[in-house]
Amino acid sequence: MDTHPRFAVIGGGSWATAIVKMLCENVEQVNWYMRSIYAVEHIKKQEHNPNYLSSVEFNTDQLKLSNDINVTIQNADYIIFAIPSAFLKRELDNLQVPLDDKIIFSAIKGIVPETSLIVGEHFEEYYNIPYENIGVITGPCHAEEVALERLSYLTIACADEKKAQLMADCLGSDYITCKITDDVTGTEYASVLKNIYAIAAGIAHGLGYGDNFQSVLMSNAIREMKKFIKKVHKMKRNINDSAYLGDLLVTGYSVFSRNRMFGNMIGKGYTVKSAQMEMSMIAEGYYATESAYKINKDKRAKTPIINAVYSILYEGKNPKKVFKKLAEKLD
Amino acid sequence: MDTHPRFAVIGGGSWATAIVKMLCENVEQVNWYMRSIYAVEHIKKQEHNPNYLSSVEFNTDQLKLSNDINVTIQNADYIIFAIPSAFLKRELDNLQVPLDDKIIFSAIKGIVPETSLIVGEHFEEYYNIPYENIGVITGPCHAEEVALERLSYLTIACADEKKAQLMADCLGSDYITCKITDDVTGTEYASVLKNIYAIAAGIAHGLGYGDNFQSVLMSNAIREMKKFIKKVHKMKRNINDSAYLGDLLVTGYSVFSRNRMFGNMIGKGYTVKSAQMEMSMIAEGYYATESAYKINKDKRAKTPIINAVYSILYEGKNPKKVFKKLAEKLD
Repeated sequence: MDTHPRFAVIGGGSWATAIVKMLCENVEQVNWYMRSIYAVEHIKKQEHNPNYLSSVEFNTDQLKLSNDINVTIQNADYIIFAIPSAFLKRELDNLQVPLDDKIIFSAIKGIVPETSLIVGEHFEEYYNIPYENIGVITGPCHAEEVALERLSYLTIACADEKKAQLMADCLGSDYITCKITDDVTGTEYASVLKNIYAIAAGIAHGLGYGDNFQSVLMSNAIREMKKFIKKVHKMKRNINDSAYLGDLLVTGYSVFSRNRMFGNMIGKGYTVKSAQMEMSMIAEGYYATESAYKINKDKRAKTPIINAVYSILYEGKNPKKVFKKLAEKLD
Repeated sequence: MDTHPRFAVIGGGSWATAIVKMLCENVEQVNWYMRSIYAVEHIKKQEHNPNYLSSVEFNTDQLKLSNDINVTIQNADYIIFAIPSAFLKRELDNLQVPLDDKIIFSAIKGIVPETSLIVGEHFEEYYNIPYENIGVITGPCHAEEVALERLSYLTIACADEKKAQLMADCLGSDYITCKITDDVTGTEYASVLKNIYAIAAGIAHGLGYGDNFQSVLMSNAIREMKKFIKKVHKMKRNINDSAYLGDLLVTGYSVFSRNRMFGNMIGKGYTVKSAQMEMSMIAEGYYATESAYKINKDKRAKTPIINAVYSILYEGKNPKKVFKKLAEKLD
C-alpha cells in the first residue's frame, strides 16, 4: 500500500455520513457505498444525504459514490463498515472482490446476529483478515453532534499502532480529537454492551424509576461491563476511559438513543414485537443482549443487568418484576 | 446510649426534609431544628414544610420541632447535619450544649469555607468528636425523588460499622436502599468534588459543548476524582461504586443541580457575582473549588478540571479560553 491509502465507507446512515464528513476534512477522496441508488443520486446532485444528517454539505468532487459494494471496496485500502450489524452478513454476501488484503475498521456497534460474533471477530473468522488488520472506531459520539461540529472524542483501536494512528490522523480535526489504543476487543465489546445498558436505562425510565436509580444503574453497569470484558479479553485497561465509560454515558443518558427508546417502550408495557414495529427498526442492543447472554454462559461474569434485560426481551418476563429483583442486586 | 438512640436533623432545606421523611419511616420521634420560626410553626400546623418538598406530609406527633439548635441537639444522640456548609460555622457558634458525646453524621456536601475542611474533619478538629463517632450520609440522591418515594440508594459511611448500620437501618425503607462503608473521608470528598465537576459540566453546556463532550468530561472527572481522593486518603475503594461515580452522575447530568446551573450561567457569560445574585444563593461547589484547589497544592494530584474551574471562578479567566485548553487535556 502506498503512503496515500484509499478509504471506503460502507453505509448510508447517520454514523456513516458523519464518518465521511470527518474523512473529507483530511483526505482527497472517499469511496462511499450505500444501498439506495436514490440516495446516491441525491447526494451527487444535492450535495447532502437526503435521509441522515442532511445539514451536512459535501464537496462531491471528494466523493466516489456507488451502490455497488464491490466497486467501492475494490477502490480502497482502508474499509470502514458503518451499517447496522443485522445487515452486515447480507451486504458481505454480495462481495465478489477479495477482502483479505484490506484493512478493516468497524464502526458498527453491534453483534453479527448470524454468527454471534463482534464485527472484528466475524471478519477474522469468516474473511481471514489478520488481527493486526482489524480496527475499531468508537465514541462517545452522537453523529448529530459531528454534523454540528461540536467537539467530540473518538477512540481508534488497532493492534497495529501505525494503522490506528493513520486512521486517527484521517478522522481528527478542529472538532474531532482522536485517541488510539490496542484494545480492539475491549473497545468493541464496550460499544456493544453499552447498548444493552441503554435498553436497561430505557426500561427503568419506562417503569417510572427516576434519576437517582439511573445513576446507580449506570454505576453498576460500568462495573458489570468491566467484569464482562475482562472475561472475554484480559488486559490492562482503565474502564473509566472515554471509550468505555464515556460511550456508556453518552448512550445511557441520551433520550435520542434508539436502544434507550426501545427499552422505554418495553418498560411502558409494549411487547418486543410491537416496540420493534413502532420503531420500524430493530435496536442494536436487542441482538447484543442475546449474544452477550450466551457468550457469558461460558464466561460466567456476574452480569445481573444483562440477565435482567435478556429475561425481559427473550423469555417474556414481566419488566416490573424483573427490575424489582434487579434493584435488590444493585448497590 | 440505650438501644433506642434519639435522632436530630439540623436544617430546613430539601435534603434535611427528605432525611426527616426517611427517618420517620423507622423511628418514633425525630428532633428537627430549623432557623425559621415561621417554618417551624407552619409544619406544626400544616404538617408540611412550606419551603421545600412541600408535598411531603408529616405525622407531627413524630416531630419535635425547634428553632433553638441547643434544644434539638440536647435531646438527641445521633445528630445529622444537613445545612449548606457556608452556614455551618454560624449555626455551631450558637451552641451552648456539648457536642463531644454525640454521634455526628454529615449530610452536607461541601467544605466549611472558614476552615477549608470537609465537615467530618471540621467536627474532629474543632469539636473533638472522635473519628469513630463521625459519619457521612451520601447519595446519589435528589431529595425531590425521595419525596416522590422513587427508589434511591444511599451510602452510609462510618469507621464504626455498628453506627453506620444503625443509621442505615433507620434511613432504609421500601424506597431507600442503604449500603455501608468505612470510607468516611473518601465518600465525603467525593460528595464535595462532584459539585465542582457539576459546575464544569454547566460551564461546558453554557459554552455550547454538547453531549459527546459531556460524556468525555464525566469520564475524565471520575478518573480525576479517583486520583484526588487517593492522595487525601489512600485505601482500597472502587471509584465506580454509587457513592462516588453514581453521585457524580446524578449531579453532573442533572439540569436541576444548583452547581450545574451556576456553571451554566458562568459559561453563558455571567460574572461570578452576577450569577450568584441571580441564583440568590451560592452553589456549594463554589467554595469547594477554592478549597480543593488549595488542598491539592500540597497533594499534587493531576486535576485539570478542578484547576480550570478554579481559574475561571477565582482568577477571572475567560471560560471559553480555559475550556479550549482543558479540552486538549481530556481524552
